[in-house]
Amino acid sequence: MSQPRQSIKVGILGATGTVGQRSAGQAYAKVVRWKLAMSIPDSVRDMVVEECKPDVGGFSECGVVFSGLDADVAGDIEQAFRAADLVVYSNAKNYRRDPLCPLIVPLVNPSHLDIIPYQRQSLGLQKGYIVTNANCSTTGLVVPLAALEKAFGPLETVMVTTLQAISGAGYPGVSSLDIMDNVVPYIGSEEEKIEWETNKILGGLTSDKKAFDLHAPNQINVSAQCTRVPVIDGHTGCVSVKFARSPAPLVAEVEKAFRDFRCEAQDLNVPSAPGQAIVVHDAPDRPQPRLDKDLYNGACVSVGRIRDCPVFDIKFVCLIDNVRLGAATSSVINAEIAVEKGLIQ
Amino acid sequence: MSQPRQSIKVGILGATGTVGQRSAGQAYAKVVRWKLAMSIPDSVRDMVVEECKPDVGGFSECGVVFSGLDADVAGDIEQAFRAADLVVYSNAKNYRRDPLCPLIVPLVNPSHLDIIPYQRQSLGLQKGYIVTNANCSTTGLVVPLAALEKAFGPLETVMVTTLQAISGAGYPGVSSLDIMDNVVPYIGSEEEKIEWETNKILGGLTSDKKAFDLHAPNQINVSAQCTRVPVIDGHTGCVSVKFARSPAPLVAEVEKAFRDFRCEAQDLNVPSAPGQAIVVHDAPDRPQPRLDKDLYNGACVSVGRIRDCPVFDIKFVCLIDNVRLGAATSSVINAEIAVEKGLIQ
Amino acid sequence: MSQPRQSIKVGILGATGTVGQRSAGQAYAKVVRWKLAMSIPDSVRDMVVEECKPDVGGFSECGVVFSGLDADVAGDIEQAFRAADLVVYSNAKNYRRDPLCPLIVPLVNPSHLDIIPYQRQSLGLQKGYIVTNANCSTTGLVVPLAALEKAFGPLETVMVTTLQAISGAGYPGVSSLDIMDNVVPYIGSEEEKIEWETNKILGGLTSDKKAFDLHAPNQINVSAQCTRVPVIDGHTGCVSVKFARSPAPLVAEVEKAFRDFRCEAQDLNVPSAPGQAIVVHDAPDRPQPRLDKDLYNGACVSVGRIRDCPVFDIKFVCLIDNVRLGAATSSVINAEIAVEKGLIQ
Amino acid sequence: MSQPRQSIKVGILGATGTVGQRSAGQAYAKVVRWKLAMSIPDSVRDMVVEECKPDVGGFSECGVVFSGLDADVAGDIEQAFRAADLVVYSNAKNYRRDPLCPLIVPLVNPSHLDIIPYQRQSLGLQKGYIVTNANCSTTGLVVPLAALEKAFGPLETVMVTTLQAISGAGYPGVSSLDIMDNVVPYIGSEEEKIEWETNKILGGLTSDKKAFDLHAPNQINVSAQCTRVPVIDGHTGCVSVKFARSPAPLVAEVEKAFRDFRCEAQDLNVPSAPGQAIVVHDAPDRPQPRLDKDLYNGACVSVGRIRDCPVFDIKFVCLIDNVRLGAATSSVINAEIAVEKGLIQ
Repeated sequence: MSQPRQSIKVGILGATGTVGQRSAGQAYAKVVRWKLAMSIPDSVRDMVVEECKPDVGGFSECGVVFSGLDADVAGDIEQAFRAADLVVYSNAKNYRRDPLCPLIVPLVNPSHLDIIPYQRQSLGLQKGYIVTNANCSTTGLVVPLAALEKAFGPLETVMVTTLQAISGAGYPGVSSLDIMDNVVPYIGSEEEKIEWETNKILGGLTSDKKAFDLHAPNQINVSAQCTRVPVIDGHTGCVSVKFARSPAPLVAEVEKAFRDFRCEAQDLNVPSAPGQAIVVHDAPDRPQPRLDKDLYNGACVSVGRIRDCPVFDIKFVCLIDNVRLGAATSSVINAEIAVEKGLIQ
Repeated sequence: MSQPRQSIKVGILGATGTVGQRSAGQAYAKVVRWKLAMSIPDSVRDMVVEECKPDVGGFSECGVVFSGLDADVAGDIEQAFRAADLVVYSNAKNYRRDPLCPLIVPLVNPSHLDIIPYQRQSLGLQKGYIVTNANCSTTGLVVPLAALEKAFGPLETVMVTTLQAISGAGYPGVSSLDIMDNVVPYIGSEEEKIEWETNKILGGLTSDKKAFDLHAPNQINVSAQCTRVPVIDGHTGCVSVKFARSPAPLVAEVEKAFRDFRCEAQDLNVPSAPGQAIVVHDAPDRPQPRLDKDLYNGACVSVGRIRDCPVFDIKFVCLIDNVRLGAATSSVINAEIAVEKGLIQ
Repeated sequence: MSQPRQSIKVGILGATGTVGQRSAGQAYAKVVRWKLAMSIPDSVRDMVVEECKPDVGGFSECGVVFSGLDADVAGDIEQAFRAADLVVYSNAKNYRRDPLCPLIVPLVNPSHLDIIPYQRQSLGLQKGYIVTNANCSTTGLVVPLAALEKAFGPLETVMVTTLQAISGAGYPGVSSLDIMDNVVPYIGSEEEKIEWETNKILGGLTSDKKAFDLHAPNQINVSAQCTRVPVIDGHTGCVSVKFARSPAPLVAEVEKAFRDFRCEAQDLNVPSAPGQAIVVHDAPDRPQPRLDKDLYNGACVSVGRIRDCPVFDIKFVCLIDNVRLGAATSSVINAEIAVEKGLIQ
Repeated sequence: MSQPRQSIKVGILGATGTVGQRSAGQAYAKVVRWKLAMSIPDSVRDMVVEECKPDVGGFSECGVVFSGLDADVAGDIEQAFRAADLVVYSNAKNYRRDPLCPLIVPLVNPSHLDIIPYQRQSLGLQKGYIVTNANCSTTGLVVPLAALEKAFGPLETVMVTTLQAISGAGYPGVSSLDIMDNVVPYIGSEEEKIEWETNKILGGLTSDKKAFDLHAPNQINVSAQCTRVPVIDGHTGCVSVKFARSPAPLVAEVEKAFRDFRCEAQDLNVPSAPGQAIVVHDAPDRPQPRLDKDLYNGACVSVGRIRDCPVFDIKFVCLIDNVRLGAATSSVINAEIAVEKGLIQ
């Protein structure tokens, strides 16, 4: 790409983590609970944290505001920002099932941005709208499912058991006494998210671009079991799928479809798009969260162990970096795509 | 029980673990790699280890010989012991698929001992025979499945994803560099074992007591995905089942069937039988391996999270102590039942 | 012991853990956050939790009240109970440095109970008094130090680095994101506790039984470094000691002193006393927390790797079960000794 | 640096890990057991592994040969390479105590390279010699000790307890059954290495450059206790030091000395030198292995918790990335320095 990309001012809601409400007016480095192996970048260290209101600070000048707010406050605050005609890309769950808000996995369904004009129109806004990204486990699942539907037509049934990392629960999140040398076979409302979100993401828009078709006419039948395991980062999924078509594709064909899958984020060549959307692993014991989550800076999904399923058609294992493509990286790529489409300026 | 039980001499093959072949003639405490939190019992410490041959030491006087041998040597050695007219109860996989050898989960199918007379007859033996117990993950799965079939008739389909403990791989087994902060989504040949063993265990004997019917006429369709997780002891399974009958039982009926399940080992009141074969957990996040594996000295199976499955009928989580009911404890209870039936003297 | 022991009614302060303040009037099983592998005993399950005040419920009839309160409330509440002429045995730190309150490690210094008459007299009480047990890491250290001083006379210098389990921080305590695959080389005020408490415990009473001599005339010079490691239960200490006497005892003499050490709790044969106060391990890589913490129901201290120190005289490794001898078990044994001495009735 | 650096051909002994002896003639990617989160670099993947002999393949053209061999074979092989007049930089322990071989921690004592002419002369060689780097735990300790001696003169006494990562034991190395939820308070011969190597590294050369003075006339009195903890990468040390000088420097002075420490590798600006040799952490609970080992690509040492020691003068915590500065990175920086000094061409 020969032309330099434009520079766009961005805001971040919920940047300091759990103590955000008390941090306004202070330097970022003072109030954040920083838990990454890299240091706080110097360019951020002394930024002053502002109140989470659309009319203070520089929010009104932001081309896009990213929200990492907790669900218990995200609903009202994101609505207030949108009502102030601001553009919000959110990692929170609050608007994922909203009939006007796209729920976008950037490697799967950026086409759902086409509903934005109607969202604005419905709310009488010029610029403002909300886009959400998906639950982290949903994201890791729907990328390979999208590759399968693209190559072989609709899926009929999906069963998935997830083995999820502790970082998915935030900080302080999971007590070490609960998870060390243990499995917790329950993550509140996670299974319902996977079972519901999959059809919105893999479905399309109605022809008038005013609604989501939720994979009409035949929804995919999805059943999920979610567990927490003693892994720091990286959600693993054990998946079985049944295709609508018969006979089903062969294992080798499925593997080729995963390898060949290209997504719009790659075609648009946006800065944070991964080199490959899906990395297929040949080793029989991969992907593994510790070893494979970092591929393409955590912006791809890993797939391995593709084999026949005695019950459905095909079984495989998938892996996503839950704190990158499963969270902020999705919102960033979504926004980068929106820039290319003229929806962020 | 007012009468004292009889005392029976037992032998153990493979008692010292990985260095067994070099340990003959030495005190047990010298050659074993003891890794339990309790100390070596004094009654065992100074026992002299003998060669693994039926005609040395006191093996010929043993009413039963338990085998914890590795699969790479168990085939020949167990056969030699049986050929010497000795009774072998084995944890090894070698004879699990043998058409004459019972594959018994003691809380499920001790009735398969009825094939013993035919096994002896076929081989021209007076006393000797081989009984095996099942793979540890299979055992944790078939106990709740047996309860369901007992209450509601045959199952049609079972899908299970296992999260297995490192102790299942023996010692030294899994390198810490492979499993800390990680999941390994592969355990060699484990999935095939679960998929195959389930039908032999849950099936019956032919009417002439000379063969296993392998759940004829309709085999259960089983699909398993097996993973290794950073847990020391306790295999967790996430299970979905479809009943042959329609409509399927309700969640409350299934829960009651689990709670009401009683097995022959309990009815016979053998010493190592658990107080309950299945413990149903009410808490939404149980069973958990670290907290629940020790129930009834690891001789029961825990079940929890019983709920509707959007794809099949019912989903639930099960847990087994893989080093107790999943291994030696099964052989011990199997032998205790055989004593009651006059098959060990 | 042929005579049955007397039965004494006991109270427990802080039995429900972190939610205690809201639990009055409810059944114990409803309000406790139970995290043990064993189930709640049936005899406790339906007990009604009472307010933490000396004049409610049955506290006034209790021969002894055990306190597991958090330090932020223990000071006032324990004082109120004592002022109501009740006997308090506390695991909290608040009164450990009080000049009238014994700080007792039951395997070391129950003789400090001799100050009780003076504590009562000073406060104008008939029966009431407070006894505390020590910090968990201090406890694991002073038991072997006491054995050394008993056999070889005063110590001059002690250096210790601890590797402490997560259970020492309570529940929810340490976030899994902080400690998995990590070491936290800091535990707030822990080092000061070890450095200070050691001299009170290993010292004696003044001849008038009205004060603690704090190891006068020559205090032991103690330096501690405390770390948190990803271990569930069991605090390990790496210790170097210098004796006042010269030449110092040999390694073999030190080892014999550890093995021969007997304490008053053993001589009095109280119910919870361990069979051995100190277990010496011969294997070069023991004691280890997971394998050795359970010895004698967690009521002893393990010691191993006794060897010459190039800087001081002797180095060794010690291990304590921090949730048993390092906490409640100490208070229980302390009280059992007090019963024998007529200080609890 | 305006001039491009020269390109030098290098060889690596032991590059494939434990199966090296069987790997000659095959592509690297086929025979290596690759366990890193990053993929095998394309430039290395298809390189053909050669026999470990100086006269095969391209070894004779190598300016330097790096050895990562196991100690049980390193002695003979490295000697053979040196005898063939090749330059060997080794991570193995075999020649660390050799009176002619420098034992170099690159941030501390590259001046020991001055013995190379005498090593060559003694053995009748033109070019060949052996240089070793130090044990990983020694390396993490001597960097801060060197800073202290540079600023405040000789140390008299050092006590250190290490908490070492599992990666230090190689692959498969530590069994997960031994280390999960556990501490192993023993690492074979590790304590002796730290106690011995420290004086060779911190000492100088005799004035004739023909021998090491081993910190003459007053050796530092070093005592080490080494433990293995469930951490993947990063060795932590808890250190107490006593200075020869009196009064000792203040904590603030020590902290400044750590911050101000610069080493020859930095002055020479070699490519792999860290931006800072020592990173001082202000937070009271740092350094931590998981969060801090990656600083400066693992080529520095982290120090924190600098405070007064009640027994000696100063206590602090240090941290090293054992698989980078504690291993290969040291050899690489050592060789880069040797290039600048004309000892590798």
